[in-house]
Amino acid sequence: MEKTTKKAVILLSGGLDSATTLAIAKSKGFKCCAMTFRYGQRHSIEQKCASKIARFFEAEQLFFDINPAVFLHSALTDKSIKVPTNRKIDSSKIPITYVPARNTIFLSYALAFAESIGAFDIFIGVNATDYSGYPDCRPEYIKAYEKMANLATAAAIQKKGRRYKIHTPIIKMSKAQIIKTGTKLGVDYSLTHSCYNPDKTGKACGKCDSCQLRLKGFTEAKLIDPIRYAK
Amino acid sequence: MEKTTKKAVILLSGGLDSATTLAIAKSKGFKCCAMTFRYGQRHSIEQKCASKIARFFEAEQLFFDINPAVFLHSALTDKSIKVPTNRKIDSSKIPITYVPARNTIFLSYALAFAESIGAFDIFIGVNATDYSGYPDCRPEYIKAYEKMANLATAAAIQKKGRRYKIHTPIIKMSKAQIIKTGTKLGVDYSLTHSCYNPDKTGKACGKCDSCQLRLKGFTEAKLIDPIRYAK
Repeated sequence: MEKTTKKAVILLSGGLDSATTLAIAKSKGFKCCAMTFRYGQRHSIEQKCASKIARFFEAEQLFFDINPAVFLHSALTDKSIKVPTNRKIDSSKIPITYVPARNTIFLSYALAFAESIGAFDIFIGVNATDYSGYPDCRPEYIKAYEKMANLATAAAIQKKGRRYKIHTPIIKMSKAQIIKTGTKLGVDYSLTHSCYNPDKTGKACGKCDSCQLRLKGFTEAKLIDPIRYAK
Repeated sequence: MEKTTKKAVILLSGGLDSATTLAIAKSKGFKCCAMTFRYGQRHSIEQKCASKIARFFEAEQLFFDINPAVFLHSALTDKSIKVPTNRKIDSSKIPITYVPARNTIFLSYALAFAESIGAFDIFIGVNATDYSGYPDCRPEYIKAYEKMANLATAAAIQKKGRRYKIHTPIIKMSKAQIIKTGTKLGVDYSLTHSCYNPDKTGKACGKCDSCQLRLKGFTEAKLIDPIRYAK
């Protein structure tokens, strides 16, 4: 395994996927700087989890605010839209929890910040296997983003041979594989949060797509999900 | 010329290039929604100009704030870095006024907002001819961005045949051509601002790269620049 003290920028939401991605980046020897976004999400539990995870992995963390006026018609940002529950997940359809071009904005902040601090490595915990409904989680999107990033930036042009790399270490893993990988790397999943629509006490609903995938992943990994679910 | 009532998203800075770009979009019959960004610029004159231009062209306008912590080491955002003056402009070198991945962040907000409002047309006033120093003003960058945008978004995948188009109508024009084009379309250039480092009264310095290119453009177009310059 590559051991370096190179800096990396990590997109950290507070969910299971990005926590595992941070653990992987750290295991590769990167000095990690986490970026967490507030963009009018339905709740702020995820952001608190992101801070706990960043502290757990001794990563620097910066928060950024995105005006939710750019993200319309998503169940994740518009409380008038109901989060679907107990549905059979059809990964060929894009769900109402899709947020317009969200990963593109996140990666663009990461790119600017990476260039600002002299980093060339960006980690994002996208996953296309369990749930391929989101267009901005697919390998072909990431490849196109990386190509664009290396045309967009002064550092990629001036520093011959240095290229921006968008790392997606869990993109092809199943949720069970992600959980097993993270567990081996010491991720404390009690610090993470995945539910789209938790109750007021912070308990996960257990019914939304994200909860369903998480619970299925823990079952398949033969591990116990340490977070609390509403009854 | 195409006459439609299609919506378009326009990146509007308050400078000469984006004002002309808005005029062109409007002349093509688009219903224009302008996006203006505050990102820790040295001054706010540009933003006030952007509002005047949006009103002049009866375009809707939205402001967005970007935490300048992502944009380090640029003379446009860091007041401790001097804006170069009276220099011979070498378009093969990237100047200190370059802001890391700025256009990528701007276009990503535009993409999210376009998807949110059901628009597929985005206009940006980049220009690669007079001043090719900025990597994110080049045609190859825009082409790569457009390709990525059409992989990133639900609307491009679900609505068969609809693709995001990044319009760059002035990308290959000289500054003189831009000014002549805008003048024909009725742009009031007294409402625009180009200087990187205006004085306290708002007068342009006449010496920075941006002022030099603007002044040369007006001279070559045989037109009078209506804005005020410091003596």
